Amino acid sequence: MKMDKAALEAFLEREFPQMREMRFRIESWDGKRLRLSMPIDDRHLRPGGTVSGPTMMTLADCAAYLLILGLIGPVALAVTTNLNINFLRKPGVHSLSAEASMLKLGKSLAIAEIVIYSDGHADDPVAHATLTYSIPPAKAA
Amino acid sequence: MKMDKAALEAFLEREFPQMREMRFRIESWDGKRLRLSMPIDDRHLRPGGTVSGPTMMTLADCAAYLLILGLIGPVALAVTTNLNINFLRKPGVHSLSAEASMLKLGKSLAIAEIVIYSDGHADDPVAHATLTYSIPPAKAA
Amino acid sequence: MKMDKAALEAFLEREFPQMREMRFRIESWDGKRLRLSMPIDDRHLRPGGTVSGPTMMTLADCAAYLLILGLIGPVALAVTTNLNINFLRKPGVHSLSAEASMLKLGKSLAIAEIVIYSDGHADDPVAHATLTYSIPPAKAA
Amino acid sequence: MKMDKAALEAFLEREFPQMREMRFRIESWDGKRLRLSMPIDDRHLRPGGTVSGPTMMTLADCAAYLLILGLIGPVALAVTTNLNINFLRKPGVHSLSAEASMLKLGKSLAIAEIVIYSDGHADDPVAHATLTYSIPPAKAA
Repeated sequence: MKMDKAALEAFLEREFPQMREMRFRIESWDGKRLRLSMPIDDRHLRPGGTVSGPTMMTLADCAAYLLILGLIGPVALAVTTNLNINFLRKPGVHSLSAEASMLKLGKSLAIAEIVIYSDGHADDPVAHATLTYSIPPAKAA
Repeated sequence: MKMDKAALEAFLEREFPQMREMRFRIESWDGKRLRLSMPIDDRHLRPGGTVSGPTMMTLADCAAYLLILGLIGPVALAVTTNLNINFLRKPGVHSLSAEASMLKLGKSLAIAEIVIYSDGHADDPVAHATLTYSIPPAKAA
Repeated sequence: MKMDKAALEAFLEREFPQMREMRFRIESWDGKRLRLSMPIDDRHLRPGGTVSGPTMMTLADCAAYLLILGLIGPVALAVTTNLNINFLRKPGVHSLSAEASMLKLGKSLAIAEIVIYSDGHADDPVAHATLTYSIPPAKAA
Repeated sequence: MKMDKAALEAFLEREFPQMREMRFRIESWDGKRLRLSMPIDDRHLRPGGTVSGPTMMTLADCAAYLLILGLIGPVALAVTTNLNINFLRKPGVHSLSAEASMLKLGKSLAIAEIVIYSDGHADDPVAHATLTYSIPPAKAA
């Protein structure tokens, strides 16, 4: 672990002020799994009262980014190269939590798996994503 | 074509007020291809001055949704089941345009291809996505 | 569980004779997880002594198919609509095992997750895939 | 263009003898688009007389690999890191052709798009894939 929960929160606050309006919150980070949650309000809802796909993609992308930062440190220029997401069930109007873990952490590519849950339904995930991040060659940071 | 450009714009305005802040604009829709653009401002930028991945995913998802509506009418409950996106190049701080076309329009599944361009660079797309939408059995609309 | 291990093996043998040459073997099936293995020989190798991507895709697709059959019975016409696979590590020249579990089993869509391991390396999967199958409306079987 | 059609064919023959049984044939390669075809016989068929998914994945992967080789030369160790494929229509029992073009050719990643057609149906592709290849740092070749 290169950055702990407090360091990640400070980084998120400083580098992604535009994320503040999403009110993401790191629930836990133990060096293996990172759990990121967000409250749901009207802004994220689609017709039929369901959370929009883009909201879940944003949560998945941010969880993967924090996981990578937590493991390799503040490489602000790591960029997503691929995201694949399957939407599994209609989430309720509850807060969402994304659980991120690393499938592979290589020198130039990191591949993370993200499972998104609607609070109170731990058995039936609402979405499953895999993300690939390209890691720039180390020099400074 | 079941809905023309004006009908799609009215639908977008009515059903997705939360999209208004993204300032999406349908540039063209000819029954085959739909082009959706958005201006870029600070809110969409990541460290390094690049447009965030989630911003492009949101644009791709909305373009695919409008394409399907344009072809089959106001089926508000069509839902995304899968999105795969490859980020190809760092977009500049220009407006983005997504060009959406249909790979397959079946009775229960629609699969769309979306290519995203940074304005002024028509040869080098910044992202490429495929989206699958599940279409509910027709009854009303 | 609609079909047990023996029933799946009989189905595989009868309906997919062309799979016989891959020598797939169901290692276990408990109603939740299905494990399918295959020996590796020269035919599956690429330059550099690694197992080819298509070999792993075939294994993943077959494991997902058997998982669905095991859960819903011999719906021979269920068809793959989407496959996404990330190759994580170079597998050794060992037999491969695919562990398949269901992310969602709906009426018209089933989404499975497959993790592929090189024998003897249970901690570091060599590939991760998600597959979507379209399930035809039930009538006969 | 680093390798022409004849050079690619010789490479395929030499390095992938196991592909010979698939009887892949490069139909055309102009430095932008590569078209690879294969005859279909019983071995590739699934119940219901349709071409198997893995057969189309193998064709897509090989077309992307040849495209990359054609553009950057015999980098035999380029490896697939991600494949996403959508199956669009049931192909007939005709030969298949894959048309490959490059979405991005970077220093360490190449992303290709592959559209697969069933012969005689040029308007309605049977599958659409995107593939990412990781390119090892140049030293020899």
